Amino acid sequence: MLKSLGYAAQSAQSPLAPFNFERRITGPHDVQIEILYCGVCHSDLHMARNEWKGTTFPVVPGHEIVGRVTEVGAHVSKFKVGQIAGVGCMVDSCQSCASCDEGLEQYCETGFTGTYSSPEKETGGMTYGGYSNNIVVNEKFVLHVSDKLDPAGAAPLLCAGITTWSPLRHWKVGKGQKVGIVGLGGLGHMGVKLAHAMGAHVVLFTTSPDKKEDALRLGADEVVVSKDAAQMAQHANSFDFILNTVAAQHNLDAFMVLLKREGTMTLVGIPEHSHPSPSVANLIFKRRHLAGSLIGGIQETQEMLDFCAEHGITSDIEIIKIQDINTAYERMLKSDVKYRFVIDMASLAA
Amino acid sequence: MLKSLGYAAQSAQSPLAPFNFERRITGPHDVQIEILYCGVCHSDLHMARNEWKGTTFPVVPGHEIVGRVTEVGAHVSKFKVGQIAGVGCMVDSCQSCASCDEGLEQYCETGFTGTYSSPEKETGGMTYGGYSNNIVVNEKFVLHVSDKLDPAGAAPLLCAGITTWSPLRHWKVGKGQKVGIVGLGGLGHMGVKLAHAMGAHVVLFTTSPDKKEDALRLGADEVVVSKDAAQMAQHANSFDFILNTVAAQHNLDAFMVLLKREGTMTLVGIPEHSHPSPSVANLIFKRRHLAGSLIGGIQETQEMLDFCAEHGITSDIEIIKIQDINTAYERMLKSDVKYRFVIDMASLAA
Ligand SMILES: [Zn+2]
Ligand SMILES: [Zn+2]
Ligand SMILES: [Zn+2]
Ligand SMILES: [Zn+2]
Repeated sequence: MLKSLGYAAQSAQSPLAPFNFERRITGPHDVQIEILYCGVCHSDLHMARNEWKGTTFPVVPGHEIVGRVTEVGAHVSKFKVGQIAGVGCMVDSCQSCASCDEGLEQYCETGFTGTYSSPEKETGGMTYGGYSNNIVVNEKFVLHVSDKLDPAGAAPLLCAGITTWSPLRHWKVGKGQKVGIVGLGGLGHMGVKLAHAMGAHVVLFTTSPDKKEDALRLGADEVVVSKDAAQMAQHANSFDFILNTVAAQHNLDAFMVLLKREGTMTLVGIPEHSHPSPSVANLIFKRRHLAGSLIGGIQETQEMLDFCAEHGITSDIEIIKIQDINTAYERMLKSDVKYRFVIDMASLAA
Repeated sequence: MLKSLGYAAQSAQSPLAPFNFERRITGPHDVQIEILYCGVCHSDLHMARNEWKGTTFPVVPGHEIVGRVTEVGAHVSKFKVGQIAGVGCMVDSCQSCASCDEGLEQYCETGFTGTYSSPEKETGGMTYGGYSNNIVVNEKFVLHVSDKLDPAGAAPLLCAGITTWSPLRHWKVGKGQKVGIVGLGGLGHMGVKLAHAMGAHVVLFTTSPDKKEDALRLGADEVVVSKDAAQMAQHANSFDFILNTVAAQHNLDAFMVLLKREGTMTLVGIPEHSHPSPSVANLIFKRRHLAGSLIGGIQETQEMLDFCAEHGITSDIEIIKIQDINTAYERMLKSDVKYRFVIDMASLAA
């Protein structure tokens, strides 16, 4: 077995603390990675505190992983020792259902294997995530990360990046389109950067007027304070697509009425308390769509990473030591981060 | 002016009663029609009782109109005296917006002119509907009804038919697809007939087990009692498209989970009380869509009528006299009709 050191929650009430554990040895199709950086996603906090139920403890969170390949199995063809590699939210799937065949492993019909707190086929144990010094993953679920990208800033691309990229691509966002991004957090700020790089006219919706300058810097063409009914009304019936990254309960209709005929608003966050029921009339009178989207497939994650390398896109981050993770969670709950915490894994050895 | 006799509600509390009124004379682009049959739509009742507010009284309801052309204006090219013609929910629109240009007058950006209780550009008065002996309509909003079709059974095609046809066509229902129709009323029974004729595998959802035999006769391949959780579970993740014709408040999630990845459920009825808020997780985990659709455009209404003539499709109806309209409304409220009341307008003269 491979000895690993990470930070784990031992129960829903425990803070994260050092944890020694073992991973499987590098199998013939596996890549072993020394983790350099790991982004901090809201899901990590939900899982560590068992807020979605179903967490198996101890849990080592982390699914925005960038590191260096330290070993490859005999049949590995895609990776070489020394390369920079990434791992996102998934480390396995059935690889034989219709969704997997289409490269949409996130919709695997038997459920994908999550990067942490998910049953691991190879060992019968549970997967452990990226808040640790190493990881072993089947090469099919490992991504190439260009040397052109700052590895710390690239880490959040593996979840926040692909979660916004996938719907923007699926709904064919591009030049000549007016696209809304709701919320300027970890996901939203990536949505703004990506939609801008795709050539769309990007409008950022926020409840905080003080985020305006930053949103413009990130690539928004316009910023609308969503609590300002007059500002909102000026955009009625004008959007081709709206990507709504806000998981907190809110009034969807305020945005639905901004869509053109046949426009779509896609949700990527699951609210703890249901949103107010959206108006059926708003759907009917303009043939509008309300939809959802989950992360993205492995192939499109690679496409996103290559696009980001080409366009020089990374996440805006604040680097922390692993010892500060519990404080970071508290700050994340207050949205006190621009726009993603990334753990410098060198701190683990300190 | 053209003298007309119809049935009108004088107030939200009044039953419908005989009403003498005037229509505009046949203008150069107009077609004058002697009304033979008029279907009875739920909207008629809502409008007569001002349940959607905004009704202007007196109101002559009726927008499922079939009749015989009795006069045509000098510039009319599409119609000749003696032909059978139809009029649906719209009698005018701006004819210059993007939606009108695409033949989607139902989404006219300045709002279409409804067949009744809508401001009439030509006169400055209000439009009066099909519960009457005649009507004058711009030829652009008049449809050809084939002599092959029973004119009484064809009348409901002008609203119930096109309201189900348009979404089935827009979401490209056809062979090899599994399509659900929710509800077996005036709209639902047309949805079953049309989706079946389009070649889809049709599953009818109903809360009434006793509707099974009739649904199969109408063209359903399967009937599922939507209150039976075990039956419903057998269809999880299997539908390409679901057309939901039920306006009464109900749990949308029971049907959303039956959609395949990327499937769409389209609503055509506006509930008086909001449906429970649909689950965001159900949207996200299968990239599903919830959408709405309004009637249909004039061109697609003609296509639907031609398709129905070719396939011998009309509505299942119960013919009534105009004098029985108030009783018919009460029966309609109890869903005591298979599946549409149609007024024989000859009764007006009795
Ligand atoms: Zn994440
Ligand atoms: Zn699969
Ligand atoms: Zn109607
Ligand atoms: Zn128009």
